Amino acid sequence: MEIKVVKDILGANDQIAQKNRQLFDSHKNFVVNVMASPGAGKTSLIMETIKRLKGKVKMGVVEGDISSSLDAEAISQEDVPVVQINTGGECHLDANMTASALGDLPLADIELLLIENVGNLVCPAEFKIGEDIRVLISSTPEGDDKPYKYPLMFHEADAVLINKVDLLPYVRFDVDAFAKAIKGINRRAKIFPVSCTTGQGIDDWVEWLLGLMGQR
Amino acid sequence: MEIKVVKDILGANDQIAQKNRQLFDSHKNFVVNVMASPGAGKTSLIMETIKRLKGKVKMGVVEGDISSSLDAEAISQEDVPVVQINTGGECHLDANMTASALGDLPLADIELLLIENVGNLVCPAEFKIGEDIRVLISSTPEGDDKPYKYPLMFHEADAVLINKVDLLPYVRFDVDAFAKAIKGINRRAKIFPVSCTTGQGIDDWVEWLLGLMGQR
Repeated sequence: MEIKVVKDILGANDQIAQKNRQLFDSHKNFVVNVMASPGAGKTSLIMETIKRLKGKVKMGVVEGDISSSLDAEAISQEDVPVVQINTGGECHLDANMTASALGDLPLADIELLLIENVGNLVCPAEFKIGEDIRVLISSTPEGDDKPYKYPLMFHEADAVLINKVDLLPYVRFDVDAFAKAIKGINRRAKIFPVSCTTGQGIDDWVEWLLGLMGQR
Repeated sequence: MEIKVVKDILGANDQIAQKNRQLFDSHKNFVVNVMASPGAGKTSLIMETIKRLKGKVKMGVVEGDISSSLDAEAISQEDVPVVQINTGGECHLDANMTASALGDLPLADIELLLIENVGNLVCPAEFKIGEDIRVLISSTPEGDDKPYKYPLMFHEADAVLINKVDLLPYVRFDVDAFAKAIKGINRRAKIFPVSCTTGQGIDDWVEWLLGLMGQR
């Protein structure tokens, strides 16, 4: 059997990402693609960001997961519009899945759109979704060797948040060595040590984010 | 342009996995596919297993990573044969990649072959590599909601090791709720709370593994 193949699947994705981008631009949405390993703290970071910006910035959230709506339920308690995408097995969000969620969000009433990708340090890095910036959360219990093992993800990040710094006394993680490894792959990435549990460093992240939004 | 497509890529993978299986059977290798999120403790578990079984069981290791040979270098210090597979961007080991590594291992002199998959809770679960058992390592800092979010991986596991139980006082993780969530997806999975840092629970895991090997 002969089947016609879209040869450049990433090229096709980029076209849809560009359409998402035009839609975001028309509504002046600043869009953040939040990526990380499972359990590194994506939902927690989004919650902390919402808590700090509530009343100042109009926000919306897209939650990407293979299965379940646990994260969207948590976010909805913060009283911001949220849409859950269940990828049904797919290991990443792509531009088309993202597009399918946008109709359910009041984009005209959103300044900052936070999109939580599927927990995965590999595949999400390959798929643009129309975002302004890509943010990678790396957590201290994962170890400081991750930039060497998942170089594309670290290469693609505009910011790397080192989460769970409150656990540093109990795990083997050298913050300086980690930052150096990132710089070897990606000189532009801004690095923020944070803890979503204690709140440490979150203000610095939020200030940087507001600065970027202000430049547009 | 028309391109011929292998329609059932998983079917093709299964055929190669079956060939790997025949090779393993001819050498009486017991093969463990070790899967987990990045940084959950795959290499640490393999190291702890080697330390306990050295002199009793002849072992070999395949290290799967997207990039780098850090883990293979660590393992090689334990004086067991080890081969590194760099997937070059691929998010999982498949049967063919695994087959490509086997020629570099002294299979006739190996009783237990430990294969470390790429750090990823999604894609590796879809690809058989010819293994006897699939072992999933979940670590406490990742949180206890992972079975709901990555159901296929938990469904496919013969054993789930809850690693980093030494961090339980510092993280939100309910061992009983986690075990219950696993049982809802997969009743057969054996569950071992362990710490590769303190050694807690490792003996139970190793004993169970030896028991399985003895049954063959």
